[in-house]
Amino acid sequence: MDSRLHRAWAEGKGALNGWLSIPSTVTAEFMALQDFDSLTVDLQHGLVDYQTALSLFQAVEGRGPAPLARVPWNEPGIIMKLLDAGAMGIICPMINTADDAKKFVGACRYHPDGYRSTGPTRAGLIYPNYFPQANKSIVTLAMIETVEAVGNVDAICATPGLTGVYVGPSDLAVSMLKSPGMDPTDPEVVANIDKILAAVKKAGLKAGIHCLTAAYSRKMVEKGFDFVTLASDVRMFLNAASGDVKTYRDLEAKR
Amino acid sequence: MDSRLHRAWAEGKGALNGWLSIPSTVTAEFMALQDFDSLTVDLQHGLVDYQTALSLFQAVEGRGPAPLARVPWNEPGIIMKLLDAGAMGIICPMINTADDAKKFVGACRYHPDGYRSTGPTRAGLIYPNYFPQANKSIVTLAMIETVEAVGNVDAICATPGLTGVYVGPSDLAVSMLKSPGMDPTDPEVVANIDKILAAVKKAGLKAGIHCLTAAYSRKMVEKGFDFVTLASDVRMFLNAASGDVKTYRDLEAKR
Amino acid sequence: MDSRLHRAWAEGKGALNGWLSIPSTVTAEFMALQDFDSLTVDLQHGLVDYQTALSLFQAVEGRGPAPLARVPWNEPGIIMKLLDAGAMGIICPMINTADDAKKFVGACRYHPDGYRSTGPTRAGLIYPNYFPQANKSIVTLAMIETVEAVGNVDAICATPGLTGVYVGPSDLAVSMLKSPGMDPTDPEVVANIDKILAAVKKAGLKAGIHCLTAAYSRKMVEKGFDFVTLASDVRMFLNAASGDVKTYRDLEAKR
Amino acid sequence: MDSRLHRAWAEGKGALNGWLSIPSTVTAEFMALQDFDSLTVDLQHGLVDYQTALSLFQAVEGRGPAPLARVPWNEPGIIMKLLDAGAMGIICPMINTADDAKKFVGACRYHPDGYRSTGPTRAGLIYPNYFPQANKSIVTLAMIETVEAVGNVDAICATPGLTGVYVGPSDLAVSMLKSPGMDPTDPEVVANIDKILAAVKKAGLKAGIHCLTAAYSRKMVEKGFDFVTLASDVRMFLNAASGDVKTYRDLEAKR
Amino acid sequence: MDSRLHRAWAEGKGALNGWLSIPSTVTAEFMALQDFDSLTVDLQHGLVDYQTALSLFQAVEGRGPAPLARVPWNEPGIIMKLLDAGAMGIICPMINTADDAKKFVGACRYHPDGYRSTGPTRAGLIYPNYFPQANKSIVTLAMIETVEAVGNVDAICATPGLTGVYVGPSDLAVSMLKSPGMDPTDPEVVANIDKILAAVKKAGLKAGIHCLTAAYSRKMVEKGFDFVTLASDVRMFLNAASGDVKTYRDLEAKR
Amino acid sequence: MDSRLHRAWAEGKGALNGWLSIPSTVTAEFMALQDFDSLTVDLQHGLVDYQTALSLFQAVEGRGPAPLARVPWNEPGIIMKLLDAGAMGIICPMINTADDAKKFVGACRYHPDGYRSTGPTRAGLIYPNYFPQANKSIVTLAMIETVEAVGNVDAICATPGLTGVYVGPSDLAVSMLKSPGMDPTDPEVVANIDKILAAVKKAGLKAGIHCLTAAYSRKMVEKGFDFVTLASDVRMFLNAASGDVKTYRDLEAKR
Repeated sequence: MDSRLHRAWAEGKGALNGWLSIPSTVTAEFMALQDFDSLTVDLQHGLVDYQTALSLFQAVEGRGPAPLARVPWNEPGIIMKLLDAGAMGIICPMINTADDAKKFVGACRYHPDGYRSTGPTRAGLIYPNYFPQANKSIVTLAMIETVEAVGNVDAICATPGLTGVYVGPSDLAVSMLKSPGMDPTDPEVVANIDKILAAVKKAGLKAGIHCLTAAYSRKMVEKGFDFVTLASDVRMFLNAASGDVKTYRDLEAKR
Repeated sequence: MDSRLHRAWAEGKGALNGWLSIPSTVTAEFMALQDFDSLTVDLQHGLVDYQTALSLFQAVEGRGPAPLARVPWNEPGIIMKLLDAGAMGIICPMINTADDAKKFVGACRYHPDGYRSTGPTRAGLIYPNYFPQANKSIVTLAMIETVEAVGNVDAICATPGLTGVYVGPSDLAVSMLKSPGMDPTDPEVVANIDKILAAVKKAGLKAGIHCLTAAYSRKMVEKGFDFVTLASDVRMFLNAASGDVKTYRDLEAKR
Repeated sequence: MDSRLHRAWAEGKGALNGWLSIPSTVTAEFMALQDFDSLTVDLQHGLVDYQTALSLFQAVEGRGPAPLARVPWNEPGIIMKLLDAGAMGIICPMINTADDAKKFVGACRYHPDGYRSTGPTRAGLIYPNYFPQANKSIVTLAMIETVEAVGNVDAICATPGLTGVYVGPSDLAVSMLKSPGMDPTDPEVVANIDKILAAVKKAGLKAGIHCLTAAYSRKMVEKGFDFVTLASDVRMFLNAASGDVKTYRDLEAKR
Repeated sequence: MDSRLHRAWAEGKGALNGWLSIPSTVTAEFMALQDFDSLTVDLQHGLVDYQTALSLFQAVEGRGPAPLARVPWNEPGIIMKLLDAGAMGIICPMINTADDAKKFVGACRYHPDGYRSTGPTRAGLIYPNYFPQANKSIVTLAMIETVEAVGNVDAICATPGLTGVYVGPSDLAVSMLKSPGMDPTDPEVVANIDKILAAVKKAGLKAGIHCLTAAYSRKMVEKGFDFVTLASDVRMFLNAASGDVKTYRDLEAKR
Repeated sequence: MDSRLHRAWAEGKGALNGWLSIPSTVTAEFMALQDFDSLTVDLQHGLVDYQTALSLFQAVEGRGPAPLARVPWNEPGIIMKLLDAGAMGIICPMINTADDAKKFVGACRYHPDGYRSTGPTRAGLIYPNYFPQANKSIVTLAMIETVEAVGNVDAICATPGLTGVYVGPSDLAVSMLKSPGMDPTDPEVVANIDKILAAVKKAGLKAGIHCLTAAYSRKMVEKGFDFVTLASDVRMFLNAASGDVKTYRDLEAKR
Repeated sequence: MDSRLHRAWAEGKGALNGWLSIPSTVTAEFMALQDFDSLTVDLQHGLVDYQTALSLFQAVEGRGPAPLARVPWNEPGIIMKLLDAGAMGIICPMINTADDAKKFVGACRYHPDGYRSTGPTRAGLIYPNYFPQANKSIVTLAMIETVEAVGNVDAICATPGLTGVYVGPSDLAVSMLKSPGMDPTDPEVVANIDKILAAVKKAGLKAGIHCLTAAYSRKMVEKGFDFVTLASDVRMFLNAASGDVKTYRDLEAKR
């Protein structure tokens, strides 16, 4: 399996990921027309279920960005369904221990590397020579987003078959009894992110992080992250709509 | 978060809940136009999955009744998805032990009260100031519907963060080797319901029960229940359709 | 093509028709389980478009009642699509003149009886030997629902290939500058309905009428109508839901 | 029928309209949360058909903005279906003559003002006392968007029951053999827009215009327009997504 | 606009067209993975409406075959919607006269070549530089499928802006009082097809024909047709399913 | 509950099962029109989720074949939902131990045979007298598809309430470090299949196997299998489409 994401990494570049939370093939296609290296369908906090995710993969297909998915939870049923539907990688939330990581990665890998069931109905059709390649090409990103997970980061990174780690800064902050939010500047949160990054790099894995703004995303790549997510379709849309209306109402008020 | 349900309880009144089992925004909107305090989208026995549940929440929105959901099973993925989609509360089936209750409530509460992941895509948008309020406002109702659960009712009610208990009389009867059915009059079943009610009240929690008729629902409120469900959209529709056709055919036969 | 509707008419009995306005296969299947002779998917005032109508036909299939459709307007595109999708008959609104009727019936009949295009994708599959039978079996009902149409009723009934006429009492009343409503008792409206019935019978065609209650429906059959519609899924559902809630609230108020 | 749109006009203020071209209840609800006076579901150039339009009306319901629809073409079937589904007004494209306008307005008005068929399945439910009010409350906006229509603007404005006119600047420019585009500054196009505005005002009707930016929209209100559309959900979304990605890629290139 | 269809014609080759009648993005994507030059979404006899057609275009996008659509009837609303959604060409049924052809072609062409309204929401996004190219690139194929149309074939072919003609052999046979069917061998039907082909070639237009088998399709290309349709997704699927089951049941019977 | 599947087994005949992986009621209905004894909606590797599965059950209903479902994973929530939706049986993947089998069967059986929750919304409506029959009529097939499961086959077959076993040859081969694939001829794989068959027969249970071709399916029945699946809708469709296009392109190349 070849993709813009695989190529960006092969060239040693940080990859730019987009985020699909709106259950519409139309907005997904709009996102796929932008210059992203990958697009992640979010089945956790996004407003998207399996059947919609399948249609989003189809709408994104052939546009360039590699299709990924974030699953609602570390459950093998939905992980395997999304891979069969054509996801080139899975982001799994709330990986707190090495056991969590092993269960997650195993669901993404065929025997003997894992326990994924064969039958890649759509994936086998759109990716030539799928079975021999899948175990090495499918991207597996474990979310580190609690204090507990930070404590276990080395053990998590030692999981065979794990591609990398994806930092969820908002849940991480909440687990530190701080307010949720993206693009953190709180020194304690940043310290934990740095700790994760160092562990991931030491283990020779890929490091990813969920960001909000282009500026923060770039900063993270420059810091060493290999994969950054630029906000989401929801935030982009809401910012644009509220901004335009505000401009109008401000002009009206000034009159 | 404010709602008719929260207000009814604040006023010490029993709340009237409706039940959405039909996967249609049209029938959901019809239900939302009636004088219910809350409406529960049933993802367990109802013919409804996540994507449909989201659209039902949207159709109900702004009509008055508080949107709740019953989940298919005690699984964190779907519980969190429904809360993010705007459910103000979750009814969870088959809570048989205190451990079940803890796992359920934890999925509904952010750290440190639970392990819910942050990212309330729709909820955060439609409920102002969501994060600081969610842990105290989100309603969590554990279904007590087996003999085992009745035996553990005090332990279940001791779960921190649990709002209350919801009695499923039909499964309870089946677990007693009796026939399934609603609005039970069998003395042994009624005795178990009374036992649950007493335990819930002692614990200072809310007591709810699934009913069929308006008369039985009112009787339960008068008995002390805080939350009663009046049949379901399915039963209302079937009764009406079969009744009207029968009236016609009876008139035809008399001719 | 054989159906309960065709059989009822062959036996000289008035047929009982149900009305599908809710865009849900679930409520359609509920209706199909009742003892109707036919079920009409309403694409005019119903909340239903072509793609949904197709799924409603599939949900009704094999349950007994003959599937019919009311089209939004006298337009050949949608008439032919619904026949290809499996409708055994079409009710067409606002037929005011013989030309209207000719255009309508022509869209339902293959050459040389009309100008329907061949290609009955689903109909040809589910109805054996479709092409040779379609022209004589497909039911065509022209709605007479204006004063103008009443004036032209004989000419309309003279249209070759027209199966019958379907009275829309509410629009008829409005065209007489009266209030809309079903099951009319206003003598002038009733007089026009009687006039239509007499003309249809004289022409040897089938007479149908849209009704609300079982009692009125039966009265119309006894008056000579061959086809009566018993309210609609929407009205049945709303009556049931509002009735049950009212009973509860009345009991609550009495307390 | 009361709405923010009706109130804005009653107060003599220009109304701000939003535009829904994306077939998603999620993006529609996002738009409905903004400070618009009305929201128009575009069934002409928007990626939306009837069944989706119905769900968009439901998602918008109760949020504030009045729901309107632009129809694909001047055809009575779809106009009446959208009104029954809850549209408070219709924008009809390509009204070039007084006959076009009469056909359009007639489809929106019950007898004796027009030929709309009664049966407002959803509208009658959500708008109390619908029938007596509909003929005076339903908004009818005829699009003037060709040179021919400009020539006939006085005759069009003389159509009884017409609420106003909606200028389509892009088609108007194309009909003048100029390039399509919004927020025109070409003096000849602007001259035609001014001519339309003057005629509409002289006739005592409402004048609306499709705009792109907040600044241009406000300018049009200050010029005398009563109704301005601020771009569309599609343009807002595309601007936001392409802008954010560009910012990121520019930062990357600078590195 | 560039496409495999445009390229095949530029190289003087007959193009192979596939036919999408199943309302599923999954089967559409399967078809798009085959070696077709174009794929036509059939909104006439196919089980497909606008909203589904849009999703089929998205599923086909980027796979190679040019997306076309057959409309239900010669109506400007749906023709323009499909072009805006990304159709590179339109096949219009039942073009019997030069006036029919003019109305059809006009709906596909911007002023001054026609009366298409500007606003190509999806088409303008996926096809760079759309407006200046659309009038010359959009394919317009008028169906000749009645005896009347054969009589008017020269006049139809003289319509400015018409790309070509598409023969519907089954309706043509029916209009000759013969049985419907594809791949005709009846000499009188073949004679009419030959007459159409000759007229189209004389006019310098493209000739297309609806076929069933690969063999007949090739024969038509060799005869001079520029565009042949190989059966449909429905027929392929039904042949395969019934064939496999029959093989099994035959083996069972032999036992 | 009566069905073609139950009848075939009552007559001691091997049953022919079809496989639904395409999320379309149209292709499902096409399959239901073929001479299958049962049809299994595949929610594991098929492109189908719960909401679609419900609609597929409705499309299949009344056509003859018994509706079954394969679940994504051994999880009680989805198993119970599919039974409530009308599945007459469940195929559960990756049953490797007796504990797995017990958990699976328990989800399909009401107390005291299992822990299924009562509330068969659709099943209770379409199958008369459902509750008393369900525990004995619902078919439960455990997939044996790993070396581990083969080792535990006797213990799995000893599970009370288990109807039978369903062999997944492709995963079985992968678990033996061989290539995936159907209709295996590899002697070691065949030896394991034979071992499973013998154990199942010894336990007096039903034996099923997933096959590709009609010939292999029949061979399996003759070997003693009671239930064979003939490929899938996906494979049938792809074979047909690719075959027809290849025939055309081969003819073209020969020219």
